[in-house]
Amino acid sequence: MNAGNAPTMKDVAREAGVSLGTVSKVINGISVGEQYRRKVEAATKKLGYQVNNYARGLKTNKTNCVALVMPSLRHPFFAMLTDELTSCLMRIGYRSLLMTTNYDSVAEKNCFQLAQQNKIDGIIALSYSPNLEADDSVPVVTIDRHFSANIPCVSSDNYRGGELAAEKLIALGCRSLLFFRIGPNIYGEVEKRGPGFENACRMAKVPYQSLFLSDADTEAPFFRFLEEHIQDGKLEFDGIFCNSDGLAVRVCEFLRSREIRIPEDVQIIGYDGIVDFATGRYICSTIVQPVAEMAQTAVKALLSGDSALSPANISLPVYFAPGGTTRE
Amino acid sequence: MNAGNAPTMKDVAREAGVSLGTVSKVINGISVGEQYRRKVEAATKKLGYQVNNYARGLKTNKTNCVALVMPSLRHPFFAMLTDELTSCLMRIGYRSLLMTTNYDSVAEKNCFQLAQQNKIDGIIALSYSPNLEADDSVPVVTIDRHFSANIPCVSSDNYRGGELAAEKLIALGCRSLLFFRIGPNIYGEVEKRGPGFENACRMAKVPYQSLFLSDADTEAPFFRFLEEHIQDGKLEFDGIFCNSDGLAVRVCEFLRSREIRIPEDVQIIGYDGIVDFATGRYICSTIVQPVAEMAQTAVKALLSGDSALSPANISLPVYFAPGGTTRE
Repeated sequence: MNAGNAPTMKDVAREAGVSLGTVSKVINGISVGEQYRRKVEAATKKLGYQVNNYARGLKTNKTNCVALVMPSLRHPFFAMLTDELTSCLMRIGYRSLLMTTNYDSVAEKNCFQLAQQNKIDGIIALSYSPNLEADDSVPVVTIDRHFSANIPCVSSDNYRGGELAAEKLIALGCRSLLFFRIGPNIYGEVEKRGPGFENACRMAKVPYQSLFLSDADTEAPFFRFLEEHIQDGKLEFDGIFCNSDGLAVRVCEFLRSREIRIPEDVQIIGYDGIVDFATGRYICSTIVQPVAEMAQTAVKALLSGDSALSPANISLPVYFAPGGTTRE
Repeated sequence: MNAGNAPTMKDVAREAGVSLGTVSKVINGISVGEQYRRKVEAATKKLGYQVNNYARGLKTNKTNCVALVMPSLRHPFFAMLTDELTSCLMRIGYRSLLMTTNYDSVAEKNCFQLAQQNKIDGIIALSYSPNLEADDSVPVVTIDRHFSANIPCVSSDNYRGGELAAEKLIALGCRSLLFFRIGPNIYGEVEKRGPGFENACRMAKVPYQSLFLSDADTEAPFFRFLEEHIQDGKLEFDGIFCNSDGLAVRVCEFLRSREIRIPEDVQIIGYDGIVDFATGRYICSTIVQPVAEMAQTAVKALLSGDSALSPANISLPVYFAPGGTTRE
């Protein structure tokens, strides 16, 4: 034990004769074998070890600079998130190194390499890379995609958001539901929107259909599907949940072009909470992601330093906001 | 002359017996007295001086990092510009330090100080500070606001954009025009939109009225003005130019709420070229700012290093794009 200083997690591990990871798990309430838990608790008590959130801060070579890896700023959700992250970092005296990847996973890997070479304190990444190549040299927090237990992932509560969309549509009178998903071919937290929606439909015994497309496809199959299910000017479904506000707007536009009224005939809910900059209104009825809270949480999780001490998945509460495409 | 090395601009100035600024002007084709031009040309020839764009690069303590100072990323124009600047810098191996000011000039000054302390190669700023406090320690390029002859300013050709809006409305049959401006109470390049518009109206002998408001006001006076000029369901003006797309959208919305048809009764043009992310369409008929070119030009002007060698004002061509609020 380092004389005169407060005991560290390493000291606890040495005293208990277990790995650092085991200590971390016990401290974070993650299940380990009973004998390990006892050893760690005994060592913790003996050494008087206390979890110190401030001591979790980054200790060596502080640069006060955090890299933000974003696909692009052309999508308002990413722009809003970057704005909040930067404001949040500036308030605590940190600078933001912005890296945009244009959804290109090669560019993305280069970003990470660049970030790691240039003495930054950490990385907050909204990554589309199939395999994020983060090493231990720099703390990483991800948004919306969970890579490993050592990398905290911050997201909105996507599963609950899906449930909420179904519950809302059902409460507003819908009796035949539809879920449209288009996105990248990689698994991320956002994929829980569909299962949440479907489960809430099952619970309420309301029939539903789901269509899943990849970004590699066009959205044409959605519109073909809708076209095929219009009979005598009436869509066979009366409620649609789309996995993004952008898609919801395009679906509304398509249905209106077929003389179907929104929200009178069909009600539609998107996901994200995008606000039109010109009017200040939601662009459609939507499940709102708590962007400011997500940014604050990501910064806090990153700067707590020891990612083993942060919960791996942090999902933040969402809420429904009416935006003209539902009856309320 | 520094032995063994290529001659520098300073060597030319010494040889010609003129100031460095004079040499710079001659090299950049800016008019100087004929005798000075001859002296500089003779010295240039004698020393074999060659303008070397690469040698203009920043020489000492290169960090390969440029600070971007932006009001916010919540406005799509700023997000788009930041996206282009970052992509442009990354392509040439530079990183972007993003600083958002939230339109606060105190925060903005702090940003500059922070930027200057932290060893960056330069600053690209879209600043709302009344007085930009840039010193000589770091090269600065501004967007849309011209601070001094030593700081290159990149903007769209705002004056031409204003003219173009008037010309387009007149060509599309408008006979009574209106200009609405709302913005900060500081002079910037964007203020040339109004004068350009008014001058084109005068040239075409088409009557016009202009209303100028400050951000400190609300937009209510615009809507009161419109209300007062509606007679029997008809607006007394048939063409409106707004100094931003956001304002144009709000004006359209107001007029439509008064049963005035856009573009049949009144045609409206905004400025910026904002594209709706969901539909990919312009949100209104608009004068498009060449954002990618502006970003490239700003980066180039910054990294050319010697700001005396860059023209102080660089305005880039704009164009009209129809977006549903004009007849074509």
